[in-house]
Amino acid sequence: MANLKSRLSHLQSRDDSGFSSNASGRFINKNGTPNVRRAGLSNPLQKYSWYHTMLDLPSWQFILLLICGYILANIIFALIYYSIGIEHLTGIDESSPFNQFTDVFFFSSQTFTTVGYGRIAPVGFFASLVATFEAFLGLLGFAIATGLFYGRFSRPRAFLKFSKIALIVPFQEGTAMMFRMAPYKNNLLTDAQVVLTCAIEDADENGELKSKFFTLKTLISQINTLSLNWTVVHKIDKNSPFFELTKDNFETMDVEIFVHVRAFDEVFSNTVVQRTSYSSHHKEIIFAKKFNMMYAPSKRQKTTVLNLDRIDSYTPYSNY
Amino acid sequence: MANLKSRLSHLQSRDDSGFSSNASGRFINKNGTPNVRRAGLSNPLQKYSWYHTMLDLPSWQFILLLICGYILANIIFALIYYSIGIEHLTGIDESSPFNQFTDVFFFSSQTFTTVGYGRIAPVGFFASLVATFEAFLGLLGFAIATGLFYGRFSRPRAFLKFSKIALIVPFQEGTAMMFRMAPYKNNLLTDAQVVLTCAIEDADENGELKSKFFTLKTLISQINTLSLNWTVVHKIDKNSPFFELTKDNFETMDVEIFVHVRAFDEVFSNTVVQRTSYSSHHKEIIFAKKFNMMYAPSKRQKTTVLNLDRIDSYTPYSNY
Amino acid sequence: MANLKSRLSHLQSRDDSGFSSNASGRFINKNGTPNVRRAGLSNPLQKYSWYHTMLDLPSWQFILLLICGYILANIIFALIYYSIGIEHLTGIDESSPFNQFTDVFFFSSQTFTTVGYGRIAPVGFFASLVATFEAFLGLLGFAIATGLFYGRFSRPRAFLKFSKIALIVPFQEGTAMMFRMAPYKNNLLTDAQVVLTCAIEDADENGELKSKFFTLKTLISQINTLSLNWTVVHKIDKNSPFFELTKDNFETMDVEIFVHVRAFDEVFSNTVVQRTSYSSHHKEIIFAKKFNMMYAPSKRQKTTVLNLDRIDSYTPYSNY
Amino acid sequence: MANLKSRLSHLQSRDDSGFSSNASGRFINKNGTPNVRRAGLSNPLQKYSWYHTMLDLPSWQFILLLICGYILANIIFALIYYSIGIEHLTGIDESSPFNQFTDVFFFSSQTFTTVGYGRIAPVGFFASLVATFEAFLGLLGFAIATGLFYGRFSRPRAFLKFSKIALIVPFQEGTAMMFRMAPYKNNLLTDAQVVLTCAIEDADENGELKSKFFTLKTLISQINTLSLNWTVVHKIDKNSPFFELTKDNFETMDVEIFVHVRAFDEVFSNTVVQRTSYSSHHKEIIFAKKFNMMYAPSKRQKTTVLNLDRIDSYTPYSNY
Repeated sequence: MANLKSRLSHLQSRDDSGFSSNASGRFINKNGTPNVRRAGLSNPLQKYSWYHTMLDLPSWQFILLLICGYILANIIFALIYYSIGIEHLTGIDESSPFNQFTDVFFFSSQTFTTVGYGRIAPVGFFASLVATFEAFLGLLGFAIATGLFYGRFSRPRAFLKFSKIALIVPFQEGTAMMFRMAPYKNNLLTDAQVVLTCAIEDADENGELKSKFFTLKTLISQINTLSLNWTVVHKIDKNSPFFELTKDNFETMDVEIFVHVRAFDEVFSNTVVQRTSYSSHHKEIIFAKKFNMMYAPSKRQKTTVLNLDRIDSYTPYSNY
Repeated sequence: MANLKSRLSHLQSRDDSGFSSNASGRFINKNGTPNVRRAGLSNPLQKYSWYHTMLDLPSWQFILLLICGYILANIIFALIYYSIGIEHLTGIDESSPFNQFTDVFFFSSQTFTTVGYGRIAPVGFFASLVATFEAFLGLLGFAIATGLFYGRFSRPRAFLKFSKIALIVPFQEGTAMMFRMAPYKNNLLTDAQVVLTCAIEDADENGELKSKFFTLKTLISQINTLSLNWTVVHKIDKNSPFFELTKDNFETMDVEIFVHVRAFDEVFSNTVVQRTSYSSHHKEIIFAKKFNMMYAPSKRQKTTVLNLDRIDSYTPYSNY
Repeated sequence: MANLKSRLSHLQSRDDSGFSSNASGRFINKNGTPNVRRAGLSNPLQKYSWYHTMLDLPSWQFILLLICGYILANIIFALIYYSIGIEHLTGIDESSPFNQFTDVFFFSSQTFTTVGYGRIAPVGFFASLVATFEAFLGLLGFAIATGLFYGRFSRPRAFLKFSKIALIVPFQEGTAMMFRMAPYKNNLLTDAQVVLTCAIEDADENGELKSKFFTLKTLISQINTLSLNWTVVHKIDKNSPFFELTKDNFETMDVEIFVHVRAFDEVFSNTVVQRTSYSSHHKEIIFAKKFNMMYAPSKRQKTTVLNLDRIDSYTPYSNY
Repeated sequence: MANLKSRLSHLQSRDDSGFSSNASGRFINKNGTPNVRRAGLSNPLQKYSWYHTMLDLPSWQFILLLICGYILANIIFALIYYSIGIEHLTGIDESSPFNQFTDVFFFSSQTFTTVGYGRIAPVGFFASLVATFEAFLGLLGFAIATGLFYGRFSRPRAFLKFSKIALIVPFQEGTAMMFRMAPYKNNLLTDAQVVLTCAIEDADENGELKSKFFTLKTLISQINTLSLNWTVVHKIDKNSPFFELTKDNFETMDVEIFVHVRAFDEVFSNTVVQRTSYSSHHKEIIFAKKFNMMYAPSKRQKTTVLNLDRIDSYTPYSNY
């Protein structure tokens, strides 16, 4: 432990990462979200921004939610019309309770969607009043759905694919930690910047183990046009927290590397951000020889081909 | 008063805060809005941006406004149809004036919402003309409502909870003023920056009391990832306007601390801003021992729990 | 003229204003738009961005445009249905050609707005086909109108009122040029910055008169919170292009001051920009004693009242 | 080749352009998109962001896509109704299979667009159920179309017209490379910045030919107000990669100049970006005398006329 202390105490650890030395588990999940659970709000729903939640839902879940909401609203209104009495709706098929209810359900949907064939129509004050309110509600629901759709697909995203693993490879006279990223859609990213931070368990002045946070310098921290892959390189020199750490050290010291990428997307005309992390505990930091090339010139078509399935492709050590 | 002068005249007061020394009352309300009333516009409505107003309404007031607008529009059109003559609408229940009017009201709503059952339909030039215009108006109203809905829930917000009180606590060899903030929803804030300013009543060169404005330096002014709470610390050293002020001084000098937080929200992909203020006059600046910890590791679930109900929790002095 | 040259040739004129020395007339109109006319495009419509144009229309013109488009579309479709033959529409009032055509017009509007009462409905292939296409077109038109509405009222605006005139007043030991601005709506502006440039006619190295551009330094160029009025002050010292210019000089040299204000609006969560200019030729630069105060504390209500109708109020010289 | 090496090895080539020395063909197409083809994704659709694609489609293609989607959806639903059995739809013209199917098709469109005349209406469980779902789908499709329309026309664009060719002209005592740009719509651009980079084939330390990337300094890199044309000038001095290159050198060394322009548009209140490139291989870099003036004062109308058709107009050398 005296050995560990001398390794990192000479470096300036960060206070402004926003992470706490006393937190538990992984700091940043692989998809970039922080590993924090909120509690203590009077209303448990208060800790969710429903707009953020709606925007984060996978597409199929979002559509399913809309369908369920639609069916539920119609069932509720059908029950209301049914209790008012089906004699207040012209054209209902009264042959059996099942047919009655389904016809009322269909009438409700024709009102909610404002189709309004009229074959079934409300007669009398209360049925017409409920229908008036249901049409209004249908329009509001549709207005909200339109806004959510637009929010979902206009949300600026970087569409970057990160390599699943980060490598420690021989570099110049020493070693370097590197990982890769590449844009995988037809978006245009410019002014891409990367900020690397890491958390390492180290002994503090009382001899207790706690997490310390350090900035990792990269050879290049800004790229003008991100159209091919970008291999981010952190040289492991004497200023690096990783200096002279062995594979076992990485395991023991529970190293976690936080990646924060920011770029400008020309279609969204907006800043886009994407984050990820590499955790030694989850075996995402590997000692290897080098990354393999993932793009190749296509002489025939006078263009460059970027092979995104080769982003994790590396040459391992035959013996280490 | 000579004593007061020597306390603050050595510090550089700000001219660019945007606040005036001669203004009245609190400068910034607790919710961050400035305490200014505008007058002198020819049209009193001119001082409100209806869009800002619509976006600031609480949700229930906004929905209520839409409902009232809907009912009012239908009443107005019902009166128009009624005055044209109900014989120009087929299918009206003519049994009594009440039924006539309500049927006309319902027809109006069926046109406004474009449901258009057709059981009641316009016949003849004027009724059809009014119906043509009413359908157009209904569509426009709905277009505007869709835009307002989207504007309301896509409006970037920081969703930060501030501690209600700011503390003056022992810190290192002296004292420090500190308060806390924490994000309470599932949003992702990065690059959070805080700017602290304060207003203090002090004697100017003529011996008159007026408000002076000073910047308060913070130990850390920028946090990379704001996922836990952030305790903002202003060290009260000889460069601070609070140096050697007692509790009574704070009361007498009517101290107000302005907090301006800015961060980047990754879902909105936009800058978000939130402000608050702490006023000694409103007893929001308290001398105490320290803030109590508000988060705890959850060993079992390998995550960190942030207890938002403990954000105001502090250890007071038993005697001072 | 030799006198003029010695006045301004010692100052560094700007090349990067974007204005040309050889342009004609005023550079910036009072509302901030550049005084440039574009020509030479093959299609004259190409020089208008229809989206910018739609967003710039006054509200009443925009609504009028929508109404006219609505009526025109229905007239066109009515003519199409009429030529197909009214026997293909059930329920048409065939009593006279006028009634026939108006009924067809109303049917068209009921389809276009998707009300679809059904009292008049298409029968047969061609009428139904046209109706199918008309409903689709109505929906598209409505989608576009929804987008335009939202674009119009969500467009970030600064809502700043500028004083109509700029004053040259005694200031400290010399004089200063100053003007005022104040926010007139309930928006929240922070980090307001102002950039002042001016154009003055001066003799160049060949002795010919042309416009030169200079930056004007302001005492304060950035304000944190713009909630009251901001009086922007340019001190006329020996570094200023206005040094020792008399009232007649201002006239002769055709001085134009460009104001460019940028701030951050917290509701739009966006940068807002507003521009104006003051032209000596249009008598907008006046020698006077001082601006009069335009706000006053309201002791009773513990707030500050900002009198926007007093923004141009100044104390003139009784004799000059 | 020894000659070439000595020309460029003294200059600092860039590593952070984002382009690779080993890529093929042109780096940036004339419209600004990178010349890269992506491969290796499991699902070939994954490499397209459908939102970016929808926003990039020419307007006529987008409308055509909507029309085809509309017709296709109705054909599919017509087939579903037809297979359920046309006896479940009242009002169908049963005179011939063609009329039956077209009537079902029209009923489907009346449901999908929510017109719902009611002359044809569903009867029975299955037909009504399908109609309920079709109306819902129509509303969703319309919500998505509304969002796409708004995304398309609110997408910030710079609307800059670049000169098709870049010139190498005599400038001061040497030569300079210059090109022009001008805004061609009624938008307001401020704070326009340009960044020039170039790629040149040069021998590396092994004697092999590869592309090197260099920044090109411009006389002025930022313009306050871009309302007239801007001629961007790169002085070819000893620090320039173009120093002492002849016309033949430009051809042989496959020079490509990348232009990246960024400005702030006051209507969009957003950053706008536009890019282009000039390739010697495509004969877009020309040695000439000078660009001809493209704007003229309009004395009569007190404004400046910008002739956009003269943006490529230059004076060639009579002999070179």
